[in-house]
Amino acid sequence: MLTKAHTLEALVHGRKPGHSLDAPFYTSPEVFEADMEAIFYRHWIYVGIEPDVPEPGDVATVNIGKASVLIIRDDDNQVRAFHNVCRHRGARLIDEEKATVGNLVCRYHSWTYGLDGRLMHAPHMGADFDASCKGLKPVHLRSLEGLLFICLADNPPEDFDDVAARMAPYIAPHKVRETKIAYQSDLIEKGNWKLTIENNRECYHCEANHPELTVPLFAYGFGFAPEEMDPLDLENAQRYDALRKTSHAEWESMGLPSREIEELDSRVTGFRTERLPLDGDGESHTMDTRAACRIPLGAFTNAKLGGLSFWTQPNSWHHFLGDHIVTFSALPLDEGHTLVRTKWLVNKDAVEGVDYDIANLIEVWTATNQQDAALVEMCQRGAENPAYEPGPYSPNTEMLVEKFQRWYIGRMAAYLGS
Amino acid sequence: MLTKAHTLEALVHGRKPGHSLDAPFYTSPEVFEADMEAIFYRHWIYVGIEPDVPEPGDVATVNIGKASVLIIRDDDNQVRAFHNVCRHRGARLIDEEKATVGNLVCRYHSWTYGLDGRLMHAPHMGADFDASCKGLKPVHLRSLEGLLFICLADNPPEDFDDVAARMAPYIAPHKVRETKIAYQSDLIEKGNWKLTIENNRECYHCEANHPELTVPLFAYGFGFAPEEMDPLDLENAQRYDALRKTSHAEWESMGLPSREIEELDSRVTGFRTERLPLDGDGESHTMDTRAACRIPLGAFTNAKLGGLSFWTQPNSWHHFLGDHIVTFSALPLDEGHTLVRTKWLVNKDAVEGVDYDIANLIEVWTATNQQDAALVEMCQRGAENPAYEPGPYSPNTEMLVEKFQRWYIGRMAAYLGS
Amino acid sequence: MLTKAHTLEALVHGRKPGHSLDAPFYTSPEVFEADMEAIFYRHWIYVGIEPDVPEPGDVATVNIGKASVLIIRDDDNQVRAFHNVCRHRGARLIDEEKATVGNLVCRYHSWTYGLDGRLMHAPHMGADFDASCKGLKPVHLRSLEGLLFICLADNPPEDFDDVAARMAPYIAPHKVRETKIAYQSDLIEKGNWKLTIENNRECYHCEANHPELTVPLFAYGFGFAPEEMDPLDLENAQRYDALRKTSHAEWESMGLPSREIEELDSRVTGFRTERLPLDGDGESHTMDTRAACRIPLGAFTNAKLGGLSFWTQPNSWHHFLGDHIVTFSALPLDEGHTLVRTKWLVNKDAVEGVDYDIANLIEVWTATNQQDAALVEMCQRGAENPAYEPGPYSPNTEMLVEKFQRWYIGRMAAYLGS
Ligand code: FES
Ligand code: FES
Ligand code: FES
Ligand SMILES: [Fe+3]
Ligand SMILES: [Fe+3]
Ligand SMILES: [Fe+3]
Repeated sequence: MLTKAHTLEALVHGRKPGHSLDAPFYTSPEVFEADMEAIFYRHWIYVGIEPDVPEPGDVATVNIGKASVLIIRDDDNQVRAFHNVCRHRGARLIDEEKATVGNLVCRYHSWTYGLDGRLMHAPHMGADFDASCKGLKPVHLRSLEGLLFICLADNPPEDFDDVAARMAPYIAPHKVRETKIAYQSDLIEKGNWKLTIENNRECYHCEANHPELTVPLFAYGFGFAPEEMDPLDLENAQRYDALRKTSHAEWESMGLPSREIEELDSRVTGFRTERLPLDGDGESHTMDTRAACRIPLGAFTNAKLGGLSFWTQPNSWHHFLGDHIVTFSALPLDEGHTLVRTKWLVNKDAVEGVDYDIANLIEVWTATNQQDAALVEMCQRGAENPAYEPGPYSPNTEMLVEKFQRWYIGRMAAYLGS
Repeated sequence: MLTKAHTLEALVHGRKPGHSLDAPFYTSPEVFEADMEAIFYRHWIYVGIEPDVPEPGDVATVNIGKASVLIIRDDDNQVRAFHNVCRHRGARLIDEEKATVGNLVCRYHSWTYGLDGRLMHAPHMGADFDASCKGLKPVHLRSLEGLLFICLADNPPEDFDDVAARMAPYIAPHKVRETKIAYQSDLIEKGNWKLTIENNRECYHCEANHPELTVPLFAYGFGFAPEEMDPLDLENAQRYDALRKTSHAEWESMGLPSREIEELDSRVTGFRTERLPLDGDGESHTMDTRAACRIPLGAFTNAKLGGLSFWTQPNSWHHFLGDHIVTFSALPLDEGHTLVRTKWLVNKDAVEGVDYDIANLIEVWTATNQQDAALVEMCQRGAENPAYEPGPYSPNTEMLVEKFQRWYIGRMAAYLGS
Repeated sequence: MLTKAHTLEALVHGRKPGHSLDAPFYTSPEVFEADMEAIFYRHWIYVGIEPDVPEPGDVATVNIGKASVLIIRDDDNQVRAFHNVCRHRGARLIDEEKATVGNLVCRYHSWTYGLDGRLMHAPHMGADFDASCKGLKPVHLRSLEGLLFICLADNPPEDFDDVAARMAPYIAPHKVRETKIAYQSDLIEKGNWKLTIENNRECYHCEANHPELTVPLFAYGFGFAPEEMDPLDLENAQRYDALRKTSHAEWESMGLPSREIEELDSRVTGFRTERLPLDGDGESHTMDTRAACRIPLGAFTNAKLGGLSFWTQPNSWHHFLGDHIVTFSALPLDEGHTLVRTKWLVNKDAVEGVDYDIANLIEVWTATNQQDAALVEMCQRGAENPAYEPGPYSPNTEMLVEKFQRWYIGRMAAYLGS
């Protein structure tokens, strides 16, 4: 019953399709290192939004494993990203998650960098010192209609621009750039980042675990086994399917692309999107299914826009509603801990306490996040057990978990072959 | 003075007889892994008692290293053991140490197992899914007159039944199955599990460290160097020896086997037992040496039954008195931490506050456990010191420590040779 | 941008002169192990002062990595050092940092050692036991005018006596043996020990970080780039240089050796010393630059003696003033944590509250230590970042950092070649 030592190659090539992964993928520090190198240091990673740095001089720090990156808005309103490391003796430049600066001055010996990364001043370095090659190291950054993705590799995956072109029409109407962060939560899940993502890619667990989330979400949207349903259930499911089709048609006629695009495991920058009808009043992810914010996003006049969801490999998911956006990033800390960062965005003109109430705004996903964290921890504990072995995915409700695994295994194989 | 890197083989085969072990046996994470695989995942491990799960549907969880096992009493009153891992995506099924359930329902996606481990329900898995091969994985379990031993190996050591046959007559009169747990303490010792066991296998340290334990226990019962004793001491020792012999004869005539069996290092499932006279009033392990519980165990009518001790390799020791039982398991957590779980059992008909007082019942061993924990920590700190080297055992007072080491080294050699 | 796995050999031989070290030197547990073996277990390590054990029977424990050493004053007033490990089963003998004992009695089984380390009593070990070869293991110890250095190697570096001969005339007048510890602080810096030492070997960071320390210290004493100074600055710098020369001549005429000796990277036991003039009233490292203690050290009658500094490789620095001494040791805990132990010494006849006020005495270095700890942590965080790469040292202000690195790399190379 004991886990034999496996090479990463053997683990990757020995993955059993349709099943959860072998234990070391969740528990081994060596696999975690490989995940960082192969996945998080080479792919486009969702890290935040333009409203994280609304004004020139605003800085946000984001940590990905041991890497720390500065997201900066420069004086020309351009958002840039740099490694958070001084080029002198390597001090971390900014420790706080948010800051506002004129220039970037290292606290150690006062080396001073412009918001464009250029080394402007390095005292006592002598006449022979060439400051021009000691600017901050840049990090690749793309803004997809206000969603910020970075890539730590020298040569980022080239398909991002295509993904952005496909997704921009879906996201643009929600006008991320004209929002503000109403609330942010940082939750450390006691599990491997892949368990966080697997959990995110199915709603098989929703009925038993998410009493709040299943208020606005239709259970039928997440797969079921037709042969297990009674006639009433089946009729409801068919009614839901019809609603989805008519809603898509209606929303698209309003200029809101809504139909599913599913390219989760067929490209390097895997993603999926679809706009889904909501239950009840159908307006938002709230306990009363009504809008949480009185001022809608963008130019919306109709409150019943359902919820546009957007998932990316390896680390993000987002729900764009008519009145607010909830946007999530999963950031690995070590093989057994993952930071889930959640931001609730509202129209930047909305006034807290007047136009929206934070408790109401965040109730559904705060509860859901905590429930998911407990589930992820249960799976981590299970994977650590020497008796664990990969188990089968449901062909009806865990297809997207399987697609995540296929993407992950494919990317690891590509890394090992490179 | 520095510790060289050693292979496990070199360490095992280079052990110096009559001496404490080389430092890596206490400090190395790699040796700890090997200890888990060779010792704790292959031998019979004492984990608790039938009264841990007194009623059908009662569940107790026990963790051995990273393994987690469910002890369950089924509806037919049979006690069973299963790995605490869901066969779907591997979630830990039960986190609590004690629970009572109808069936075992995984919280994640509601897979439902019977108390016999059978998978009864797995929603949405589709028509092709074969539930019959996805029952909970069983763990070997034996009850030795109510003491529960499990073995995580596929093929457990076969000599357990012989040990049980030898020990049953000693233990049966104390009627473990008809007790209840009056009190349980979980103490994490900051030391390797072998230091916990070494400490348990000698009373060389009792005089200087255990003022409470040495009230009921005769000092002479634990070895001494005759040439260091004055005439008065020697006379007392001889008197003690005579008492032991007459007591054995008396108890055996009452149907209580009492003479020593010592097979600590001569079999796979090493063990030792003996019934020893107690000091003072001679009734129990209490500060006044009188019974702590007014209702005796089993059918006892005579209070002066001494104390029947039972030690097993690798991880348990027990004291059966006329009025109560104290039973200990050592469960390794990592190379530097060990859980010592102690349970005080009394007749299940005894009423707390009327028939027994918990403070009085647990006083001697609560103090003793804490003293031992401090000693084990001192030795762990010492073993971590690069200047540590194995030191000699006393031929008069540490013979049983040496027997533990011989058993351990022998089992490790067998593992490496297999 | 990722750190490749490096062998220690490749790291040592690939060091880029004039630059900070490659990341693994700061972050790798394996390099830390090598640092312990090659540097801290083989060189003379500063651990304290004779006044740590003022009376016979006084014991001080010092931990270097996993090693623990007892510093003991015996009944003949000789200071000795022993490994803090019982020769029986290896228990740590003394846990407290300071104790006073008659003999050294192991708490476990009462083995008893004299203050000279001899095993005096080992009960129950039998007639064949030879106590004469089971005394405490001695550790090499030298007192340099009251400063205590130990070496854990069997064959310590032989050049210590020469260093002592060179340094004794500088230190002797401050009469360390006739002081007492007015205050001690133990601060755990969250960084590798080499970052602690690098930080200690330059004042490039003083202006921006040490508002208290730069009150008594002249900025010009720590290097600057002449071409970056305005005429006023240059004139001040020249004035300082002249002051240093006249001060040296004056102090040496008083019998106080003052001129620089710099042998940081040219010998095994690298060191540097110089007596430097102080700013303001020029008496002490205090916020008002006046003496903190009314009773001077030794036989001093003149309060303006500047500050005699003494630095040793790998782990100490000291400032000897006219009225008090501040003495520092850096003791590695793991690759990312270092204990900085600071002691403030005053004349043993001085009375707290009458002759000196502790808050005033410790203000400058307490603030400075905390500031340095924050800087060291910033660099540790930076070195952990995969984007870190070694950066250039200032040829004007970081020469002594470079000398530390040359010494360190040289010693590692010698270790690897041995
Ligand atoms: S480390 Fe940044 S200025 Fe020196
Ligand atoms: S993991 Fe247990 S039901 Fe899914
Ligand atoms: S370990 Fe010190 S006396 Fe036994
Ligand atoms: Fe969920
Ligand atoms: Fe004990
Ligand atoms: Fe400093």
